[in-house]
Amino acid sequence: MLSDKKHEGDFVNISFNSKCEISKDTFVMMAGPCAAESRDQIMRTAESLAELGIHIFRAGCFKPRTDPYAWQGSGEEGLKWLDEVRTQYGMLIISEVSNFMNFAAVESCVDIIQIGAKALYDHSLLIGSGKSQKSVLVKRGFGATVNEYLRMVEYILANGNQNVMLCERGIRTFETSTRFTYDLCGAAVMQDITKLPLILDPSHAAGNSKFVVKLALASAAFDCDGLIIEVHCNPDEALCDKAQALTIAEYKELYKRVSEIISLNGRRIV
Amino acid sequence: MLSDKKHEGDFVNISFNSKCEISKDTFVMMAGPCAAESRDQIMRTAESLAELGIHIFRAGCFKPRTDPYAWQGSGEEGLKWLDEVRTQYGMLIISEVSNFMNFAAVESCVDIIQIGAKALYDHSLLIGSGKSQKSVLVKRGFGATVNEYLRMVEYILANGNQNVMLCERGIRTFETSTRFTYDLCGAAVMQDITKLPLILDPSHAAGNSKFVVKLALASAAFDCDGLIIEVHCNPDEALCDKAQALTIAEYKELYKRVSEIISLNGRRIV
Amino acid sequence: MLSDKKHEGDFVNISFNSKCEISKDTFVMMAGPCAAESRDQIMRTAESLAELGIHIFRAGCFKPRTDPYAWQGSGEEGLKWLDEVRTQYGMLIISEVSNFMNFAAVESCVDIIQIGAKALYDHSLLIGSGKSQKSVLVKRGFGATVNEYLRMVEYILANGNQNVMLCERGIRTFETSTRFTYDLCGAAVMQDITKLPLILDPSHAAGNSKFVVKLALASAAFDCDGLIIEVHCNPDEALCDKAQALTIAEYKELYKRVSEIISLNGRRIV
Amino acid sequence: MLSDKKHEGDFVNISFNSKCEISKDTFVMMAGPCAAESRDQIMRTAESLAELGIHIFRAGCFKPRTDPYAWQGSGEEGLKWLDEVRTQYGMLIISEVSNFMNFAAVESCVDIIQIGAKALYDHSLLIGSGKSQKSVLVKRGFGATVNEYLRMVEYILANGNQNVMLCERGIRTFETSTRFTYDLCGAAVMQDITKLPLILDPSHAAGNSKFVVKLALASAAFDCDGLIIEVHCNPDEALCDKAQALTIAEYKELYKRVSEIISLNGRRIV
Repeated sequence: MLSDKKHEGDFVNISFNSKCEISKDTFVMMAGPCAAESRDQIMRTAESLAELGIHIFRAGCFKPRTDPYAWQGSGEEGLKWLDEVRTQYGMLIISEVSNFMNFAAVESCVDIIQIGAKALYDHSLLIGSGKSQKSVLVKRGFGATVNEYLRMVEYILANGNQNVMLCERGIRTFETSTRFTYDLCGAAVMQDITKLPLILDPSHAAGNSKFVVKLALASAAFDCDGLIIEVHCNPDEALCDKAQALTIAEYKELYKRVSEIISLNGRRIV
Repeated sequence: MLSDKKHEGDFVNISFNSKCEISKDTFVMMAGPCAAESRDQIMRTAESLAELGIHIFRAGCFKPRTDPYAWQGSGEEGLKWLDEVRTQYGMLIISEVSNFMNFAAVESCVDIIQIGAKALYDHSLLIGSGKSQKSVLVKRGFGATVNEYLRMVEYILANGNQNVMLCERGIRTFETSTRFTYDLCGAAVMQDITKLPLILDPSHAAGNSKFVVKLALASAAFDCDGLIIEVHCNPDEALCDKAQALTIAEYKELYKRVSEIISLNGRRIV
Repeated sequence: MLSDKKHEGDFVNISFNSKCEISKDTFVMMAGPCAAESRDQIMRTAESLAELGIHIFRAGCFKPRTDPYAWQGSGEEGLKWLDEVRTQYGMLIISEVSNFMNFAAVESCVDIIQIGAKALYDHSLLIGSGKSQKSVLVKRGFGATVNEYLRMVEYILANGNQNVMLCERGIRTFETSTRFTYDLCGAAVMQDITKLPLILDPSHAAGNSKFVVKLALASAAFDCDGLIIEVHCNPDEALCDKAQALTIAEYKELYKRVSEIISLNGRRIV
Repeated sequence: MLSDKKHEGDFVNISFNSKCEISKDTFVMMAGPCAAESRDQIMRTAESLAELGIHIFRAGCFKPRTDPYAWQGSGEEGLKWLDEVRTQYGMLIISEVSNFMNFAAVESCVDIIQIGAKALYDHSLLIGSGKSQKSVLVKRGFGATVNEYLRMVEYILANGNQNVMLCERGIRTFETSTRFTYDLCGAAVMQDITKLPLILDPSHAAGNSKFVVKLALASAAFDCDGLIIEVHCNPDEALCDKAQALTIAEYKELYKRVSEIISLNGRRIV
């Protein structure tokens, strides 16, 4: 498929800090709201997650919304709140770049650059991330085959950055009773042919908090390397993707159950 | 979606015999080869599975092959071998009806009628199964939405048979690196809106034994009510779907791991 | 793809009677309502279409409905009305078999057996049609690849019947603003690799009469061998698929425009 | 679907220059190679197309390739060749922006900005194009629903640019015998609910020159407002998408046949 396949080889361990690393003994739980809506929402959610032992906090500041008349995210102000989360709770920050206009701002703030599903083909982000010192999580596009996805990821590797995580978050199919179709078959292929850690995102696939827990448990038993899940201090008032956000209480219960399942595989949550 | 929805209500327990029932405390492991190829193959595979404690044996005799010049199954002779499995090992038999021409033969032999994915829209089988005293497992068609699938299943219920099991086995999508796309999102919807037990089939979704184990473990943690998995005494010589069949040894290992996962949910394999 | 490919070779002309044949100089217009609802509806629609010069009348008597509580078709009584259409107007009759229970009744009545999209994998119908003296039109299943479709069609050819017409009627995709997605790319592949005439069905693809005309004109310019279109004497009162039925007046206008387009390719409507 | 729908209303005429405009009486033929490979290739192809009467020349300079080790396009040098085409042959230029890094360069050179299928969700390009004085052709993403596509297009309109053309170029489905699935059903919906001109691109849908002609003729009869087709002076040596490029001779023949079909609708090629 590619003349020079940097995505093949031995499994890549990624060490974020002394408390948190991706390896075959660990399992990363990334969590946080879809969007950084206000300083209060961010700090409240982060506090609860930090108490639970979560080390990687997620929140989007530049939202690639489908509706041009909808709220477009908190932008650079949101990034400041995320910076505060890092300082106050010692958490690592992952946040999404949606196009080149916000790349520099996000890259300089975060610990992990997230390339969103809709930006998979944006070479400016892929090459920029490839030249960055930060880790990168690249979501599979919902219209991308596994083969095509791995070729886009290869742009980052070919530009020098090996700290790359894959992320399956659902593909678009004829089935519309859920937001997307969670492709664990494709995820199995990814694990089979690449060395890169695989983080699964059941929140966007399901689009409905009712189903997120079941899919998250399935993902843990599937033996991926971590989960990224949307959690909100008050889902009913979320400005974005409210249907799929777990409450803090739901997430705590999920955390416990994931922990039990992965311990069967000799892994522990970090 | 339907004026009279018999698929809604309280979860349906199905009691097959004194050793094997579907309930919220149990988890059914159905296993066996894709096709009944020879008496020897059937008896050898069944013996190994019976030793492991499997109570429901699967094997197809009338194969709805895509290639008209390929082997079309052992037919009525195969059904005799399955009868022998029941007598000798006390196992329950599930086998596929592919069209009305083999309905009567299969229905009279088996304990569980399997309506295959390609036969989902065959009203003769749906109505025939609805009037039968036997239990029925209906696979979702690979081109059927969940909504459409449940409406076809409703034909069986409306004709009087409530002992019906749903089965997700993968849908057809743009992703072709695996045979089908295992739709756990759709499966979650099925569990949410129906009372019917859900059996998952990772074998046909993956189409590759390498991935079947991971998907089976995921399915166990997803908290479905059972698994139907293709196992062959000698996969290399299978006449049909050889790439996806597990060896007896692989299945034994899987059985143990599934057992651990479902015990976290208070369930035991029957 | 197949060891013995009877679908390859020189284009198959099919001569139905002295007035109507499929060839590279002709273009077949098949029309009629989705379902045979009443003697009056059938005779009124047939009369108008006969006046227009239509030689092949379509109407389904055994409807493979998705909803078990919906009207299931007029059955054998409907077939009698179709027989009357043939006698009174000299039209050829095409009607759908949906499963083996209605195969004999339909086969004995019609001039062209239609195997519906949902019955593509029903070997009893494929083999039965292969042994019949009647012509056969096989619709592509909405979840079937072109490759798989042609292999199912091969069952008919391998059983001895060469008077087979292909029919593209839309596939199921993530796009749900129309009922199905009309796959002219796939239709081009069919024409490229088989000898069989290709009839296009824009009615089921569009699912909306507003779009049927545009798709029908496109199909004519695409240079297929004919069209099968749903026309109803009173669409507002149709019991089945009312949204996609053309009125007689709309169909007359379409007929004229199709005639102009195909004459550019040296063809005339029969 | 949107609170303020600028894509609705009366059909938008776009006047490019005194010779070329989009209206209900005209039909625009855009043509040229996939990629600007060399000055010689560009000038030779442009010369032939200018002789034929083509007014809009296409060629990509910044190619969003899937393979990071493949040739990535001629970049700014290619844009100079396109400038030369405009000067020498008086043709209008359309060329693709693939991400924000090449937006300014392309925007300043071309007459029509093309936003490619893979860049549909790139807000930097949508907003940039919305503020530009140039016309814009936005291709539908191969994983985008019509609804989602029109919402992304709305970003351009909402930013002040009304000279926007839609373009269907195929969606990704389970059918892989062609590169993509040409969605004329979706195209019909676009025409039904928007005021924007619709240009069809059969080249990328088919991915095979054998099928491009048939699809192009179908598109003409469908009554879209123009076609964008890949033509190369020597397809066998094309560096990009060679399988789908028409030769000059094939394109001349197609031009003639399209002209005949659209004249039935009272339109003429410009």
